[in-house]
Amino acid sequence: MYRTHTNGELRIENVNNEVTLCGWVQKSRDLGAMTFVDLRDRYGITQLVFGEDQSELAKSLGREDVIQVSGNVIERESKNTTIPTGEIEITVNKLTILNKSKVPPFTIEDETDGGEELRMQYRYLDLRRNPLQNNLKLRHQLSIEIRKYLDSINFFEIETPYLIKSTPEGARDFVVPSRMNPNQFYALPQSPQTFKQLLMVSGFDRYYQIVRCFRDEDLRADRQPEFTQIDCEMAFVEQEDVFNTFEGMMTYLFKKVKGIDLTEFPRMDYATAIEKYGSDKPDIRFGMTFNYINEETQNKGFNVFDQSEVVIAIVAKDCSTYTRKELDKLTDFVRRPQVGAKGMVYVKCNEDGTFKSSVDKFYSQEDLKIWANKCGAEAGDLILVLSGDKAATQNQMNVLRLHLGDELGLRNPNEYAPLWVYDFPLLEWDEETKRYHAMHHPFTSPKPEDMKLLDTDPGNVRANAYDMVLNGVEIGGGSIRIHDREVQSTMFDHLGFTKEEAQAQFGFLMNAFEYGAPPHGGIALGFDRLCALFGGQETIRDFIAFPKNNGGRDVMIDSPSPISSEQLDELNIDLKVKEEL
Amino acid sequence: MYRTHTNGELRIENVNNEVTLCGWVQKSRDLGAMTFVDLRDRYGITQLVFGEDQSELAKSLGREDVIQVSGNVIERESKNTTIPTGEIEITVNKLTILNKSKVPPFTIEDETDGGEELRMQYRYLDLRRNPLQNNLKLRHQLSIEIRKYLDSINFFEIETPYLIKSTPEGARDFVVPSRMNPNQFYALPQSPQTFKQLLMVSGFDRYYQIVRCFRDEDLRADRQPEFTQIDCEMAFVEQEDVFNTFEGMMTYLFKKVKGIDLTEFPRMDYATAIEKYGSDKPDIRFGMTFNYINEETQNKGFNVFDQSEVVIAIVAKDCSTYTRKELDKLTDFVRRPQVGAKGMVYVKCNEDGTFKSSVDKFYSQEDLKIWANKCGAEAGDLILVLSGDKAATQNQMNVLRLHLGDELGLRNPNEYAPLWVYDFPLLEWDEETKRYHAMHHPFTSPKPEDMKLLDTDPGNVRANAYDMVLNGVEIGGGSIRIHDREVQSTMFDHLGFTKEEAQAQFGFLMNAFEYGAPPHGGIALGFDRLCALFGGQETIRDFIAFPKNNGGRDVMIDSPSPISSEQLDELNIDLKVKEEL
Repeated sequence: MYRTHTNGELRIENVNNEVTLCGWVQKSRDLGAMTFVDLRDRYGITQLVFGEDQSELAKSLGREDVIQVSGNVIERESKNTTIPTGEIEITVNKLTILNKSKVPPFTIEDETDGGEELRMQYRYLDLRRNPLQNNLKLRHQLSIEIRKYLDSINFFEIETPYLIKSTPEGARDFVVPSRMNPNQFYALPQSPQTFKQLLMVSGFDRYYQIVRCFRDEDLRADRQPEFTQIDCEMAFVEQEDVFNTFEGMMTYLFKKVKGIDLTEFPRMDYATAIEKYGSDKPDIRFGMTFNYINEETQNKGFNVFDQSEVVIAIVAKDCSTYTRKELDKLTDFVRRPQVGAKGMVYVKCNEDGTFKSSVDKFYSQEDLKIWANKCGAEAGDLILVLSGDKAATQNQMNVLRLHLGDELGLRNPNEYAPLWVYDFPLLEWDEETKRYHAMHHPFTSPKPEDMKLLDTDPGNVRANAYDMVLNGVEIGGGSIRIHDREVQSTMFDHLGFTKEEAQAQFGFLMNAFEYGAPPHGGIALGFDRLCALFGGQETIRDFIAFPKNNGGRDVMIDSPSPISSEQLDELNIDLKVKEEL
Repeated sequence: MYRTHTNGELRIENVNNEVTLCGWVQKSRDLGAMTFVDLRDRYGITQLVFGEDQSELAKSLGREDVIQVSGNVIERESKNTTIPTGEIEITVNKLTILNKSKVPPFTIEDETDGGEELRMQYRYLDLRRNPLQNNLKLRHQLSIEIRKYLDSINFFEIETPYLIKSTPEGARDFVVPSRMNPNQFYALPQSPQTFKQLLMVSGFDRYYQIVRCFRDEDLRADRQPEFTQIDCEMAFVEQEDVFNTFEGMMTYLFKKVKGIDLTEFPRMDYATAIEKYGSDKPDIRFGMTFNYINEETQNKGFNVFDQSEVVIAIVAKDCSTYTRKELDKLTDFVRRPQVGAKGMVYVKCNEDGTFKSSVDKFYSQEDLKIWANKCGAEAGDLILVLSGDKAATQNQMNVLRLHLGDELGLRNPNEYAPLWVYDFPLLEWDEETKRYHAMHHPFTSPKPEDMKLLDTDPGNVRANAYDMVLNGVEIGGGSIRIHDREVQSTMFDHLGFTKEEAQAQFGFLMNAFEYGAPPHGGIALGFDRLCALFGGQETIRDFIAFPKNNGGRDVMIDSPSPISSEQLDELNIDLKVKEEL
């Protein structure tokens, strides 16, 4: 053993103990006769004192050198109450430098001076910083508690294969050429969906897996080509059972890991979510829900509203004092191409009971009062109105609502508001391919009462599909699956598969359904995202030890990279265009 | 909820309860007025009784149909003491068939009539059988307990990337073409070796991960292209610390999962293991260690021994009664090409104190007595002797010893004898490439006292490398790593890397060593193998939910498979030889 204790461990009770410690030099102060060094490891910081006999070697220490010291624990004269070891220090009688460090390219402090690129390149140094150490500790704790909870209610963790089969449905697959089976390829799983369903057919009843998944997508910000999923499936359940089970898990996790009591876990159907929030993942930490004021705004000469499919208003509490400049900024915000609104109407509900709006020309005080009543706006509030085509306006208003929520401090990252959204549409229209795609995936069961619409009005068929939402972020989605061969086959028909394609790609699953497949359903939660939310942060990257950048590259190990022509030969593949090599 | 209870849950206390159960029809017996059905799920079997009113539907039930029944718990007249639910049965008043089953291609019984190929194709049905259900349950339990133990001693589970970089060292990589980085490839990890070392540089101190690894090797029996590893690393440790930590883990697992107290965990250096057992993974559940009887056998006119580098004898206790036929079978066994011995000499130590040997022509009773004394053989024992070149003979004798151990019932799968083998050679000579390779991997530290031999006698440099062995099976291996840039660079020199190659492939690691890398070491345990050993079995396949066959194929999903030309185009690759498509 290189050490008797860690640097987070020694207390006043240890005074007079002979100890050996190891760690990194966080900083050192040369006070002439004495040198003080803060020694750091994962567990904390301990102060070292070197006397004159040790002074030369001690003074040679640089930041991030790895050292081993032996010495005596003594009580500090001036105690540091901000750290657990702050009552003691070590008078060192032996110092061994285990490994010198070059000067790091950025400071290893909570707030570092290193830029994103540099920190990614030296990720192993960035990971030394407390915020990242804490993130990965949180991730570990969450994974341990998730497993404890699921184990306690009879879930088995069962590993499914990573080398599976490429299917055209869904996102793009990463593929792996097979050397032993020339001209054939494995695919890396986008999720273990079909395998977990087969495990239900096998009678495993309650399955979970914390599992890596892969999608070869053009990476938007904060997406990773490989990501981790808490993948779960249950047999003999209905939607309500899935809700109860995973509400239970979230409640347990919040209590265990954050000491927070989740008291409510409301449910909202998809149609309501879109109607009231313009989003299938509403942030319900704050209100500001949509008011449809078409009726109240028509035929007053304001063409914009008259010609709009919807006129939607939201109320910003106590914001009637917004200045012209602030309102212009909001208007500019919604008119950015990313949002796409043509303009924004405001109504200030003044404290004196009067109204001031950007459309005073068309609407009387009485008119505006009717709007205010419809929206539940009170004196001191600000009403903001967008109008246009329904779906687009709902979407724009969602963006505006969230933006205001941020501005007004209504989206406290340490407040947690979970929500189930259910009754998602089964299908969504894809303009590019001119056909319907499965909104969740092709194994999702339609609501039996909507089956009759499949031929006549496919866009309005609802599915037994649901999302778990936390603070406006989708952290998981799932569904009750199809377990009947005929229904599954019908579904593939509607998704544009020929019988032959369906059989070639998913025959194994449809065959399995003929041998006593139980009713089943499940959910998959995004583990990276869950960790970030528990950490009170929005981006997942710093909750992953070795993430990739937006180009899908690991800049630390410089991957991906060319491979040798021998490797290509063995795999029986050629590079199509070679000049870039 | 489809059910109120599982099929393993109801007891005599539940009599008169109204219950709803779900499960699979295990078997049914039609007794005219009454029909009895055994209903199965993961938790057990419950007997159902259908009266005359239900009889028509009940009689229509076939094996593996999935049903839901409601009824009343009653006490059985004739109790079944072999199952926990054997005191009760359910009088059914409502039967719902949830899904019919075709007749399965093999019986879902502990002993099935299905062949290997058929069971692999219908793996989801094979997994319904108790032995496989129990195997995967054991695997789940082991993973839960491993995590509990490692968490309790401050290990963090940290996920490392699956899309990494291809390196020529070691086994062959599976590669993944990158669409976003044309002509470049990721590789799937053969192990997270460099990442876990970087985590030590980051100060994580104690890391583990139960992680999938990939090797594109020609598959020998019982190898899988993807396999699961318990991957561990610790900083500020010496070999002894690693031994203590993972002895602790194994002791905990045996106690928790099997109720067995592991009392001993002996250690043996590599040289001794080879000398006494002819193997670096000796099965020490039984003795029968090697005796070198060169001296005792020379110059008696028996050329075979006179010309041999070594003459090795083992003693089979109480086997002097072996018949000529049995001895011939043993001789045939060692002469098979897989073993490769030229012949075998035996000496029967008769009960009357005389000796009978196959080389009586050359050796007197007195000579044979000297052999017996040297080997510790007693009256009633059988001495078996092989001779030839040292390494080959040790290897042949190892095979013979294990074979005899099996024959004599000395290798009880329910007895567990763990062992550390340490001081492995650093390098091994590769005839094909005519150079030394790292025996463990290039990051293994040489023993400091042997460093001087690196130039003069590289084959005799010992490493700080060790294996954990259980019942003659290597279940894990590890080492104390190099943490110094210069030593690592020297190592790459000796392994035939140019400076440029070393920097291109492992520059990130060597650079990391310059920023305060702590001394560190670790181990990786084969989780599939560990599960099989805990299950008292030799093959890993039935401890993996969805294994691949020896051709690397998943015959259930029919993977790998061709991919579309669009996919190839997007990835900028071509098939070199296309006719097989």
